[in-house]
Amino acid sequence: MAHRYAPPLGEMRFVIEQVLQAPASWARCPRFADTDAAMAAQVLEEAGRFASEALDPTNARGDLEGCTLDAGQVRTPGGFREAYRTFVDGGWPALACDPEWGGQGLPLLLEAALYEMLLSCNQAWSMYPGLLHGACATLAAHGSDALKATVLPKLASGEWLAAMALTEPQAGSDLGQVRTRAQPQPDGSLRVTGSKIFISGADHDLTDNIVHLVLCRLPDAPPGSRGLSLALVPKFLHDGTRNGVHIDALEHKMGCHGSATCALHYEDATGWLVGAPHRGLQAMFVMMNAARLHVGLQGLGHLERATQSALAYAAERRQLRAPTVPVERKPGEADPIAWHPAMRRTLWTLRALTEGLRVVALRTAQLIDEAQHHEDASHRARAEAQAALLTPIVKAFGTHQGFQGVSAALQVFGGYGYVHEYGIEQQLRDLRIALIYEGTNEIQAIDLLQRKVLGDGGAALRLLLEEVEAEAARCEAGLPRLATALQRECAQLRQATAALRDGHAQDPEWPLRVADDYLMGTGYLLLAWAWAAMARAAAEGGDALRARDKRALADFGLQWLLPQAQRHWQQVMARDAALPWV
Amino acid sequence: MAHRYAPPLGEMRFVIEQVLQAPASWARCPRFADTDAAMAAQVLEEAGRFASEALDPTNARGDLEGCTLDAGQVRTPGGFREAYRTFVDGGWPALACDPEWGGQGLPLLLEAALYEMLLSCNQAWSMYPGLLHGACATLAAHGSDALKATVLPKLASGEWLAAMALTEPQAGSDLGQVRTRAQPQPDGSLRVTGSKIFISGADHDLTDNIVHLVLCRLPDAPPGSRGLSLALVPKFLHDGTRNGVHIDALEHKMGCHGSATCALHYEDATGWLVGAPHRGLQAMFVMMNAARLHVGLQGLGHLERATQSALAYAAERRQLRAPTVPVERKPGEADPIAWHPAMRRTLWTLRALTEGLRVVALRTAQLIDEAQHHEDASHRARAEAQAALLTPIVKAFGTHQGFQGVSAALQVFGGYGYVHEYGIEQQLRDLRIALIYEGTNEIQAIDLLQRKVLGDGGAALRLLLEEVEAEAARCEAGLPRLATALQRECAQLRQATAALRDGHAQDPEWPLRVADDYLMGTGYLLLAWAWAAMARAAAEGGDALRARDKRALADFGLQWLLPQAQRHWQQVMARDAALPWV
Repeated sequence: MAHRYAPPLGEMRFVIEQVLQAPASWARCPRFADTDAAMAAQVLEEAGRFASEALDPTNARGDLEGCTLDAGQVRTPGGFREAYRTFVDGGWPALACDPEWGGQGLPLLLEAALYEMLLSCNQAWSMYPGLLHGACATLAAHGSDALKATVLPKLASGEWLAAMALTEPQAGSDLGQVRTRAQPQPDGSLRVTGSKIFISGADHDLTDNIVHLVLCRLPDAPPGSRGLSLALVPKFLHDGTRNGVHIDALEHKMGCHGSATCALHYEDATGWLVGAPHRGLQAMFVMMNAARLHVGLQGLGHLERATQSALAYAAERRQLRAPTVPVERKPGEADPIAWHPAMRRTLWTLRALTEGLRVVALRTAQLIDEAQHHEDASHRARAEAQAALLTPIVKAFGTHQGFQGVSAALQVFGGYGYVHEYGIEQQLRDLRIALIYEGTNEIQAIDLLQRKVLGDGGAALRLLLEEVEAEAARCEAGLPRLATALQRECAQLRQATAALRDGHAQDPEWPLRVADDYLMGTGYLLLAWAWAAMARAAAEGGDALRARDKRALADFGLQWLLPQAQRHWQQVMARDAALPWV
Repeated sequence: MAHRYAPPLGEMRFVIEQVLQAPASWARCPRFADTDAAMAAQVLEEAGRFASEALDPTNARGDLEGCTLDAGQVRTPGGFREAYRTFVDGGWPALACDPEWGGQGLPLLLEAALYEMLLSCNQAWSMYPGLLHGACATLAAHGSDALKATVLPKLASGEWLAAMALTEPQAGSDLGQVRTRAQPQPDGSLRVTGSKIFISGADHDLTDNIVHLVLCRLPDAPPGSRGLSLALVPKFLHDGTRNGVHIDALEHKMGCHGSATCALHYEDATGWLVGAPHRGLQAMFVMMNAARLHVGLQGLGHLERATQSALAYAAERRQLRAPTVPVERKPGEADPIAWHPAMRRTLWTLRALTEGLRVVALRTAQLIDEAQHHEDASHRARAEAQAALLTPIVKAFGTHQGFQGVSAALQVFGGYGYVHEYGIEQQLRDLRIALIYEGTNEIQAIDLLQRKVLGDGGAALRLLLEEVEAEAARCEAGLPRLATALQRECAQLRQATAALRDGHAQDPEWPLRVADDYLMGTGYLLLAWAWAAMARAAAEGGDALRARDKRALADFGLQWLLPQAQRHWQQVMARDAALPWV
């Protein structure tokens, strides 16, 4: 009874081609020289077909059946294997992987669009292949030649999958407390021993082999996070023997039942070092940043799905009379709830969040592409700094707004939202983890403010502000109200940043008290930028209907959503606000 | 592994005795002449013991097992029957019922405190007896003498339970679309036929009989909500024969698995009219208002539980070093997360919401007591108006803040919050329905602004403002900052109300666009009032530790939470903010 998912292909193409002008960017990246708008459109169309036709039907069943652990082997819910086989046959795992290792070498921007659609249709399933690109990038950057030659082609093809094994019972946000040990062997391999928890996809039945990227300690490791190394530990060794990787239990979770969240232990498991000794965290960060964008896309994917469902339900469900309506009605006939002001407000909020966050997330993916592949080195450096700045915002703001948005969409369904039937309550349960994993949203906020803003003297932030102010300048002639709003938000962000820069030495707790507000305020600025950029691009694009619609969306966002930024900036600036001890 | 629940008895006694001065109020209500602080304290202590010792252990099991439907009979999860028997043996169902019918005639204020504790320990279970008081009040006010004599003693003792049968597939928020028919019989009874959905506790195995209060239509009924009648339909008739009440299915829900949510149909079921023909909605409103307070208490009960759990977990979980700490630490030792600024902010937010909402909810219960039992008729009328005003706020603001608060508490647990182990994810799933049932939160906001404020010319609102401003006056000498804040919030509420009063005739959609903001703004005003009243009462009470603590809580609330009200008032006043068609 869940509403059918329609891949938002027109909207994606509009964002990619007209808002982000991606084809012009691809032309300046040698790796993407063969990628153009027509090819991208075809990739998106095929991706949408896979998501809506092959993946979507597995979602409710995956929630009901969940994963099972049977004699140490995880079984995924019915339909997951078949969907994965279709995914591999379609060449999707290889989409953004390096052609050197068998990938298609397409932009991460397109992979992000692919994953938005996959995540709209089945978050739990999408978590299995979701780490592929990050794992490939980590190994390509830090793996030995032998490891790359053995593992990368298997990952690029999807024949194997990867898992990221960081968390231990005592080491969650604080990875410095990781205890898993790695003992170097005479043959250059490692013997890995220790326990991990909350490891997504540490085992499953989708592929014959699974490689774990394990955070561990060498014997001579200094204490804390500066003593962590990264080891690759496969489930099966070259010769087909089972490695010392033992799955102890599956977690019983609020949602994502189809994703196997494993407690496991390594017992003299054979592994190989990835990157330099004691530099495991640095090697892992490549993967974690890819994973953070991926988690942000979970917020977006659920928002798109929830928006579609809420719009469809609100159009067909009739309750009460709306106060003012644009048409003649029969006396006594109830109106679609989509006509009631409170519901109209919710539905526009959902659209504004979804469409705005899509621009922000895809822009971040585009920046990562440019950071790696742009022909100009200084452009690459700027793109890298800006992508690093945006990543924690996409993760935390995207999942926060995603969760709030899905909850608002659930509310549109009334009692029907609380039962399994329409799938919306599953969305809320599935998505809730995204505010936690890959670094809690609180950790993201601290990363943004402490490391990415105060830590680099505001250089990356200046790039972002330049981009937003350039959009304001473009809007000035035709959309002056949007231009003014963008300038005002930029001024607020500048002012808050300057105050924190000047004041945090005297009060080192200040940024930590208000990091969440700083991230939220910056997130709203990005939304406003996205609404303005869409309205301006649509006005220039010549499609009158779209131009009017995007203008209305931007006006709505400015009037009904952007005012929330003010409270956050006010909280950031209230530097003397006490925060007593508990 | 869930943290043990500790009934907040000291806090409740402080609110009841010192903040609300309930003993003085009871002395002016003849019904409560024998109730005093010592007796109330004893009731609360016993209630806390039942909740924490008998009920709490059934909660996780109820979630895992859920209800089952077996040959038309609902079975509750293991332990529910035993807990209910203990509840009946303790005389709890009769707590606030009229002694004329076998009740104890205690204040609803104490029943509200009882239910806060029950709901902290098991929301699903508490929904079965949760309607008792409302059903008794409805029957006492509108039932025939014969019906009262037969049914009320059974309900007061808890030997029978009641269900409220309103919703039908096409009639949710719009009860005017109810189609269930009632055909009068020569003997004065009714034959009831029709289908209902989402009926909580329509069947279960806790009692031998269940009486349904069914919204239905007599043959000569006018269309819409003015043609609804209320019928009492028991599961078993006097002579022990099964009535025509057939349970068709149980809903599969996001949470509250232990509460039986039934789809059922009546087929020539025997019933009796309650109240006048076509006046069923009016009779039902007595019950629905009691139910709305009860639902608001669900937000409070979960908040209290989540706050306790988050505080306990944050004190024992050690991750990373906090930036500034009040004690000496060993090098390299991680700090309790309760020391980290972001977590301190969350934990204080939880305390401020919980303790503030408790004052607001218990004040509402006290007003209902005074509306019914105060010796002075004009006092009764004022209390009734004010209770009617507060009820939708307690329901919507209490459940909204409850849901947000439980989600914030879940975040404190990190990955451990997403698994069953600590019980916090169950809380989030259980509580989500409270934003929907007994009138969605959007419906509550419209009820508040359209009916309770604009509808009565602001008379009830003036009573509320007088009470808050009287508290501001009391705070002026010792707590001037709180006094100023209360005065400012009152001025904002007055200004917004005046603008809406003067402007809504020209723009009838305006109140409907901003009703949610109006309710949120008023809710924050009530929280500020509650924080101030607690700080002032504690300062007067002579307990220096409590005085300092409540002062800190009020300061925190003003600095970190109250600024959110401004955005809502700004949104209310932005009368030209467009809300386009979807």
